[in-house]
Amino acid sequence: MTTSGEVSPHTLHRLSIYLRCLRGLRDSNVLRVSSQDLADRFDLSAAQIRKDLAHFGEFGIRGVGYDVQHLTDRLRNLLGLDRHHPTIVVGVGNLGSALLRFLAMGDSAFRVVAAVDNDPSQVGTSLAGVRIEDAARLTEIATISGAEIGVLTVPASAAQANYNSLVLAGIRAVLNFAPIRLARDPDVVTRSVDLRMFFEELGFLLVRADSATVHATKTMSPGSGD
Amino acid sequence: MTTSGEVSPHTLHRLSIYLRCLRGLRDSNVLRVSSQDLADRFDLSAAQIRKDLAHFGEFGIRGVGYDVQHLTDRLRNLLGLDRHHPTIVVGVGNLGSALLRFLAMGDSAFRVVAAVDNDPSQVGTSLAGVRIEDAARLTEIATISGAEIGVLTVPASAAQANYNSLVLAGIRAVLNFAPIRLARDPDVVTRSVDLRMFFEELGFLLVRADSATVHATKTMSPGSGD
Repeated sequence: MTTSGEVSPHTLHRLSIYLRCLRGLRDSNVLRVSSQDLADRFDLSAAQIRKDLAHFGEFGIRGVGYDVQHLTDRLRNLLGLDRHHPTIVVGVGNLGSALLRFLAMGDSAFRVVAAVDNDPSQVGTSLAGVRIEDAARLTEIATISGAEIGVLTVPASAAQANYNSLVLAGIRAVLNFAPIRLARDPDVVTRSVDLRMFFEELGFLLVRADSATVHATKTMSPGSGD
Repeated sequence: MTTSGEVSPHTLHRLSIYLRCLRGLRDSNVLRVSSQDLADRFDLSAAQIRKDLAHFGEFGIRGVGYDVQHLTDRLRNLLGLDRHHPTIVVGVGNLGSALLRFLAMGDSAFRVVAAVDNDPSQVGTSLAGVRIEDAARLTEIATISGAEIGVLTVPASAAQANYNSLVLAGIRAVLNFAPIRLARDPDVVTRSVDLRMFFEELGFLLVRADSATVHATKTMSPGSGD
């Protein structure tokens, strides 16, 4: 599927996984790691790791492996994590709160600079150090905050209007968790995550397991599964 | 990547998208839809739709299209959504609550039959009609509840122990939201979703956009993006 120069979402996900593994190693003061080590420790494929990293011009030294810090920095750079991506959370219900809290943890490149909700009892309160503003003022708040990324955690019925408000505010990217296909602005990087799909995938895999086909395990290959 | 008989996670995600579109059409009393209609209405690729559905033996009739109800039923069956998948939610913080609430909505095949948390102030309370039990009794609760799927929405530090408890209880599948790579039981379908990866993917796409490479838009193709 991937031709030279393109990076598939699957590869991106794996780069994220590698980065997480490398951070763990760095925190344990491991200086070097081979692709086989990495594969063994984290249940990945060594060949896949070498292929993915070679794609970005990173080659381990035979018998020595990769420099953990260098590779960490390189992946952070590739994934744009060495820059700040000010983020606004639109809708601070359970999911919005969960995202806001975890983005507030650690050295996240995605710092939440603003949040809005349409619940009057929430407006004016703070969550993880972020003051919740009135969703009616979304365009204004997004503009003032300088947010680059908008996170939509609102009901499906409100998603398109809020998306449009973010576009008006000059947002550069939107991560949409509302279960709706948005009419997208071509100039805004728009990505939708429907959490129900992960359940539906499990449903499918269980049906497959019931049918005892040989394909069930293949579908859960390290490259695509966990 | 996909050889005959295998189904990639990407295809699964697209099937989920098609199903969501078809439900919308059915609710609008649309009886038939062509692949081109479906593509136009929902910003998909007609060729991709035909390819995906042909893979499962579904062919639209030229000039007439697909029967919406039949195709809906077929996709529901393929995705195992015409069965019940009793589900237990482990950890009822913000994310667990969000998942519990949305699984409780509509005609979800993933009915939450039990939930646990280790916060004493939560134990004994109810959320969306589900009583929250003590996480210390997880194996017992999971067994009694007859849950088939376990959802891990606990901190990374607690995920492996809770996973092991679910395995002990004979769970068939686990959807893990904790940002940790689990040591998996080979008999349990285990899928991890790390929400940070979606942010990291956006970060990457923004860096690409900044570099103004020709690949940025390709990475967001309908088959893999929204």
